[in-house]
Amino acid sequence: MRGKMKFGLNIPTRLVFGAGELKNIHEMALPGKHALVVISSGTSMKSHGYLDVLLSGLRRANIEATVFDRVMPNPIKGHVMEGARLCVSAGCDFVIGLGGGSSIDTAKAIAVTVAMGGDFWEYVHGGTGGGKPITKALPIVAIPSTAGTGTEIDLWGVITNEETQEKMGFGSPAIYPKLAIVDPELMLTVPPMLTAYQGFDAFFHAAEGYISLAHSPISDLYALESIRLLYKYLPVAVADGNNMWARIKVAWASTLAGMVESTSGCTGEHALEHAMSAFYPKLPHGAGLIAISGAYFKTFKNDVMKRYMKMAEKMRQVKSARPSDFLDALEVMKRSCGVDNIKLSDWGITMADFDRFADNAIATGGSMLDQDPRFLNREELIGIYMDSYK
Amino acid sequence: MRGKMKFGLNIPTRLVFGAGELKNIHEMALPGKHALVVISSGTSMKSHGYLDVLLSGLRRANIEATVFDRVMPNPIKGHVMEGARLCVSAGCDFVIGLGGGSSIDTAKAIAVTVAMGGDFWEYVHGGTGGGKPITKALPIVAIPSTAGTGTEIDLWGVITNEETQEKMGFGSPAIYPKLAIVDPELMLTVPPMLTAYQGFDAFFHAAEGYISLAHSPISDLYALESIRLLYKYLPVAVADGNNMWARIKVAWASTLAGMVESTSGCTGEHALEHAMSAFYPKLPHGAGLIAISGAYFKTFKNDVMKRYMKMAEKMRQVKSARPSDFLDALEVMKRSCGVDNIKLSDWGITMADFDRFADNAIATGGSMLDQDPRFLNREELIGIYMDSYK
Repeated sequence: MRGKMKFGLNIPTRLVFGAGELKNIHEMALPGKHALVVISSGTSMKSHGYLDVLLSGLRRANIEATVFDRVMPNPIKGHVMEGARLCVSAGCDFVIGLGGGSSIDTAKAIAVTVAMGGDFWEYVHGGTGGGKPITKALPIVAIPSTAGTGTEIDLWGVITNEETQEKMGFGSPAIYPKLAIVDPELMLTVPPMLTAYQGFDAFFHAAEGYISLAHSPISDLYALESIRLLYKYLPVAVADGNNMWARIKVAWASTLAGMVESTSGCTGEHALEHAMSAFYPKLPHGAGLIAISGAYFKTFKNDVMKRYMKMAEKMRQVKSARPSDFLDALEVMKRSCGVDNIKLSDWGITMADFDRFADNAIATGGSMLDQDPRFLNREELIGIYMDSYK
Repeated sequence: MRGKMKFGLNIPTRLVFGAGELKNIHEMALPGKHALVVISSGTSMKSHGYLDVLLSGLRRANIEATVFDRVMPNPIKGHVMEGARLCVSAGCDFVIGLGGGSSIDTAKAIAVTVAMGGDFWEYVHGGTGGGKPITKALPIVAIPSTAGTGTEIDLWGVITNEETQEKMGFGSPAIYPKLAIVDPELMLTVPPMLTAYQGFDAFFHAAEGYISLAHSPISDLYALESIRLLYKYLPVAVADGNNMWARIKVAWASTLAGMVESTSGCTGEHALEHAMSAFYPKLPHGAGLIAISGAYFKTFKNDVMKRYMKMAEKMRQVKSARPSDFLDALEVMKRSCGVDNIKLSDWGITMADFDRFADNAIATGGSMLDQDPRFLNREELIGIYMDSYK
C-alpha cells in the first residue's frame, strides 16, 4: 500500500473567522455565565481596546467576567495555579483566553486545573509531570491576538515549570476550545519582528506536521495550504502591518496550522526549541525555531524527499526536482521577513548549553522526537544546535 | 476586499477512516447501549457479510442491536415513521445507518423523529414541510458502504414524501453523526455503474459547493482536493472495482465532499435533480445529476470564470486560460467513467414533465437555487432540462 490511508479526524472546536468578528461575540452561543478572562501582564490588550471590546460584548450577552492579567510571554505554572484559585473563588464556569498563545495556553491550563483539581503539573506527561490523564476541563473560548500558535483550534498547550526549568506540552481532547474567534483586526498592531516570529511558528507547525510520521491526508491538505499562504503573505504582513488582506491570510494560515497540530503534530524541531526557551525564557519561541530550522530540516532532506519537493512547489509555485529546493525556499522566506540572521548568542546562549538542551529535549519532548521522519540520537540533536550557532 | 474571508467551521463528527476499520468498531467509543441498525431492504449488507461484521462488533462491545431493514433506494417518509416506532418499542438509545445514503439518511430522520416526537414531516423546511426547527436527535453513527453522499459527515439528509411527491432535504447541527466509520473495503462490491453514479454525486457536491455563493476558504480547500481525487481515481475505480487504492481515494474524496456540504452547500443542480427523482424514483440520483450537469454548469461559465479555471486546473493538472476547460474536463471524466450518454428518456421522463419539475425544484429546493452563482428564473430552469434531454 502506497502512502498512509488510515487516519482519524475530530476537531470539535467551533471556529468563527473574520475581521471584526470579536465585536459580534454577544451574538455567539457562549459556554457559561461567568467567564474568567485570561490576558497577559503586558498592556496591549488594554491599550488597543481589545479587552474593552470583549468585556462590553460579554455585558451585552449578560455574562459576568473576572479578569486575570498576570500571564507572561513564556507562561509559568505559578500563574496557572494563581488563575485557578481566582477562577474558583470568583465562581467562574468557563475561561476565555484573549491574547497570544501564552494567554490561551494559560486559560487551557486553568480550565484543566479547576475541573480536575490538585496541582496542574500532575496532568503533564513526561519530565517531572505527574502523567495523569486529563479527562475534563472547564469550557474554553480562545481569542488569539497573534497569528502563530494555532492553540485556538488544537488540543495542546505549553506551560513552563519555573521551578524545574521544564517547558512542557500538555494535551487532551477535553481542551479543544468550544469556540475560537479568530479576528485578524486584533493582529494589526503586532510589530513587524513579532509578526515574523509568530508567522514562522505557524509555518513550522505546518512543515513539521507535513513531514511527521503522524501525517495523514487531511493534515497534509491543511499543511500545504498553510505553507503556501505563509510563504506568499507573511513577508507582506511583516513589511506592512496595516495590510489587512495579508493579516487575514496569515491568520487563516495560522489557524490551518493549528488544525495540522490537531491531525498530525509537531516534530523534533519544537522539542529542540522548547529546551532552549526553557533555559532562556526571553528567547521568543519563533526566533528559536527560525534559528535552528535550517539545520533541522537539512537533517531529513534525503529521508522524505518527495515531501520536501511538494512543500517547495507550494511555496514557489513551480515544479521541484530536488528536496533542497525546500531548504532554499525557506532561506528566501527568512530573508524576505528579515529574520535570516538570528544569533542564538544574542540571547545569551553559549555552546556549553547544548548538552543540557539535548538532555532537556529528550526528557520533555520525547513524543515529538518520536515523530521525526528518522529517529535522531543525542549526538545528532547536539549537532543541530552546533550547526545553528552563531 | 477581494474574496470572502468571513466564515465559520464546525464539523463535530469523529471520523475513523481506513480499509478494514469496521472490524474495529468494538474498540470505538459508541454513543449508546442499544442501537437501531438501519439497512436497506436489499440483500447486499447481509450477503456481503457487512451486517454480520457490524453486529458481531456490537456484541463484543456489549451493545444490543435491533435491525430495521426496510429502506428503499429513494428513502420514504413511511419507512422513517415505521423505523421510529420500532426504535421506541425496542428501547434503542442510538441509531446506526449502515449502507448507502438512503440508509444513513433514514437513520438520521428516525433519530430526529424519536427525539423530537410527532411526524417527521413537521421538521422539513420548504414544500409541505412543517418547518419546525430540529433541536435534538438521538446520537447517530454512520457507516457508508458507498462513496457518494458524504452524509456520514454532514448535517443533511434527504427523504421523499411518497404522498406529496416531494424529495426534500432536512438539516440541523443536531444530526451530524457522532461517529463516521468510512471503510473502503465495504465499497469493493459496488458495481461499476453505481460506482460512477455515486462518485459523480460526490463530484457535484464538491463542484457545486465550490461555485456556491456560500463558499469559503475551508470549503474551497476540501472541494478542490475532492475534485482532483475524483477526476483521477473515479475512472480507475469504475474500470476495476477491486482496485483498493482507487476505492480508498474515491472514498476519501466523497467524505471530503461531505465536508464541503457542511461548510458550503449544494446549489441548483441538486434542486433540479431532486425534482426529477421525486417523480421518477427509479432514476438514480447520480445518473440524474450527470444527465443535467453539462447544461447546468454551462449556464454559469461566464459568472465564476476563475473558479471554473481553478477546477479545470485541479482536474487536468495544467494551467487553464478558459472557463470552458472545466466543461471539457467534465465531459472527458464522464466518458472515462462510461456515463457520457445517459438518456433521461430511458427512465420514462418526457419533455412534458419539465414544467412540473421546475415548479417542484422551486418549491422544494429554493434554498439551493438561492446559492447559485447567479439566480435562475423558472424559464432558465426549464431551459436546463431542455438542453439535457435526449
